[in-house]
Amino acid sequence: MTDDFVLHEGLAADCITLDDWPLCRVLLMNDATYPWLILVPRRAGLRDFHDVGEDDMPQFTGEISRASRALQSSFKPVKINVAALGNMVPQLHVHIIARFADDPAWPGPIWGKVPARPYESGALQERLDLLKGAFKEA
Amino acid sequence: MTDDFVLHEGLAADCITLDDWPLCRVLLMNDATYPWLILVPRRAGLRDFHDVGEDDMPQFTGEISRASRALQSSFKPVKINVAALGNMVPQLHVHIIARFADDPAWPGPIWGKVPARPYESGALQERLDLLKGAFKEA
Repeated sequence: MTDDFVLHEGLAADCITLDDWPLCRVLLMNDATYPWLILVPRRAGLRDFHDVGEDDMPQFTGEISRASRALQSSFKPVKINVAALGNMVPQLHVHIIARFADDPAWPGPIWGKVPARPYESGALQERLDLLKGAFKEA
Repeated sequence: MTDDFVLHEGLAADCITLDDWPLCRVLLMNDATYPWLILVPRRAGLRDFHDVGEDDMPQFTGEISRASRALQSSFKPVKINVAALGNMVPQLHVHIIARFADDPAWPGPIWGKVPARPYESGALQERLDLLKGAFKEA
């Protein structure tokens, strides 16, 4: 992995690091409103989805699918949203979000709908443990 | 390709078909506000990104990258947004959208920001021709 990867300060501020997979840093968005993971390929200089090199793409999509399956098995959502937007944080990052028919943004996208609701410490630890367990099976 | 693929009626109503690539149907969203493509894998029964089979995934990501490069070369946007949401239309489809600092939703996501502005017929033909040319190079 490149030594010059540095997580963007906006992602570092908003998220908790869960793990490093072979390609991506795995983050939990600190917003208890939605089960919400973010994957960031640990390569310097990537901005858009199509910047991911051909050599990395199978690993990248495999990690997106693994994160999606972990959310699916842990939370039984009706839909998984996958999105690389990056208009505010230019470093390539992929949102993977479990969606429910009774969540506050359904059926719209979640961004900007309701203010982030940071996890309380007990709930955070519980969620981290649940996800780490789910990753092992996913 | 599976014979039982049928484009979801919601996508058929909102989009113009541009092409069929080896895996995906290529659609232009009929909204002149943004250069906005949608790719739909021509496989029946897919809902989420991680439903795409391992055999299809390289083709799928290759087609996402091809569509992204065509938008990049045609419109010189500051960012390409790639998203599989599908809360309203459950059939797996990927939005690929060219974004600009002066577009009406910037820097937020585009969905639900302003009403769709259908292309006028001359502008539509011009856009289709531009994109078809760009796909050949992308």
